[in-house]
Amino acid sequence: MTRPRLLLVLLTIGASAAIAAAPDSADAPTYTAKHELVYPANYREWIFMSSGLGMSYSDRGADHQMFTNTFVPQAAYHEFMRTGKWPDKTIFVVEDRGSETKGSINKSGHFQSTDFMGIDVEVKDSRLPDGWAYFNFSSGQKTAGANPKSSCFQCHEDHAAVEHTFVQFYPTLKPVAEKFGTYHEKPVK
Amino acid sequence: MTRPRLLLVLLTIGASAAIAAAPDSADAPTYTAKHELVYPANYREWIFMSSGLGMSYSDRGADHQMFTNTFVPQAAYHEFMRTGKWPDKTIFVVEDRGSETKGSINKSGHFQSTDFMGIDVEVKDSRLPDGWAYFNFSSGQKTAGANPKSSCFQCHEDHAAVEHTFVQFYPTLKPVAEKFGTYHEKPVK
Repeated sequence: MTRPRLLLVLLTIGASAAIAAAPDSADAPTYTAKHELVYPANYREWIFMSSGLGMSYSDRGADHQMFTNTFVPQAAYHEFMRTGKWPDKTIFVVEDRGSETKGSINKSGHFQSTDFMGIDVEVKDSRLPDGWAYFNFSSGQKTAGANPKSSCFQCHEDHAAVEHTFVQFYPTLKPVAEKFGTYHEKPVK
Repeated sequence: MTRPRLLLVLLTIGASAAIAAAPDSADAPTYTAKHELVYPANYREWIFMSSGLGMSYSDRGADHQMFTNTFVPQAAYHEFMRTGKWPDKTIFVVEDRGSETKGSINKSGHFQSTDFMGIDVEVKDSRLPDGWAYFNFSSGQKTAGANPKSSCFQCHEDHAAVEHTFVQFYPTLKPVAEKFGTYHEKPVK
C-alpha cells in the first residue's frame, strides 16, 4: 500500500471512531464565521444531569436564589455512561432560572419559575486552542463569543473532578466516573 | 361493508392513532399479574420537566430539604408540546434526592447529593378504573401497588392545572398548555 493510500485509510478509521463517539451532528457545537458559538436551541430535550439552587463558589454567596439545570446531548451521555469520559464535541448547558416559593398549593421550599435568565455553555472541542471553551447567552441571545481563559477555564481546570466538568455535582454520573477511574476530586483550600 | 368489518376498521384506525401518540412501548407502564406497577428503570434518560427544593403543600413545611426532579418519556413530551395534552399511557416520575451545601468548591446554596430516596410515579392509563393512579417506590423497590384514591388522586383532581398534572410547576410546559387552552389553574383557599 502506498503512503498516501495508507494515510487515507488511517484518517478514515480515525474519523469513523470519532463519529461513533461524538454527539449527533444536530447537537454538536456550531460556530459562526466570527468564531462565535450558535445557541444550542434543543438543549431542553437533552439528558438532565442535575440541578442546584443558589449555588455559589464565593464566600459572599449568590446574588439571586437561582435554579441551575444542567444538560448534555444523549449521545455524549451514553458515551460517558459507557466509558466515564466525554466524547469530543460535547456541549454542556447550565440553564439559569428563577425560583418561587408561594404559588398554587405550594407553601414552602422552592419551585422553578418561568423567569428564564439565560444559559452558560461549556464546549469540549479539539478544534479549539485549549480544547475547552466557555460561553454565556442571556435570554434571546443567538450567538456568543468565548470567555477569556481566566474567567471560567481556569476554575474548571483547577477544580473539576472529571476532565473539565464538575461531575462532583452530578450524582448519577459520579459513581460511573469512579468506576472507570476517571474521577479526580481535588482538595479545596 | 358489513358491521363487523366496519368495526374492525374503526378499531384499527383507533389503535393506530393511540400508538402514534403514546409513549414507546419500552416507556409505557407495565404491571405485574397482581396489578402492581413495574419500576420505570429508564426514567433518568427521559425529558426533564423541572425540579424543586423542599417543596411542601402543608403549613408545616417539608421534613427534609429534598430535591424533586420530574421526568416524562420523550414521546409523551413531544405530544404535549404539539397539543397541550398528555397521551394515554404516560408515566410521570418525581425523583426524591438529598441536598448538600458545602462540598468541593461550593460554599452556599444547595446541590443534589448521591442520597437517592426513591421515586413517586403518576400514570395516565385508560385501562385503570379512574384513568390515573399513583405509586411510590423506595430505593431498590421493584414493583408498587397503587395508592388509595384519597392520598394523591384527590389532590391532583382538585389542584392540577393540566388534566391531573401540576404543570403550574413546569415552567417550559406552562406556556404551551396556555397556548392550547388546556391550562386551568384553580384557586387555592
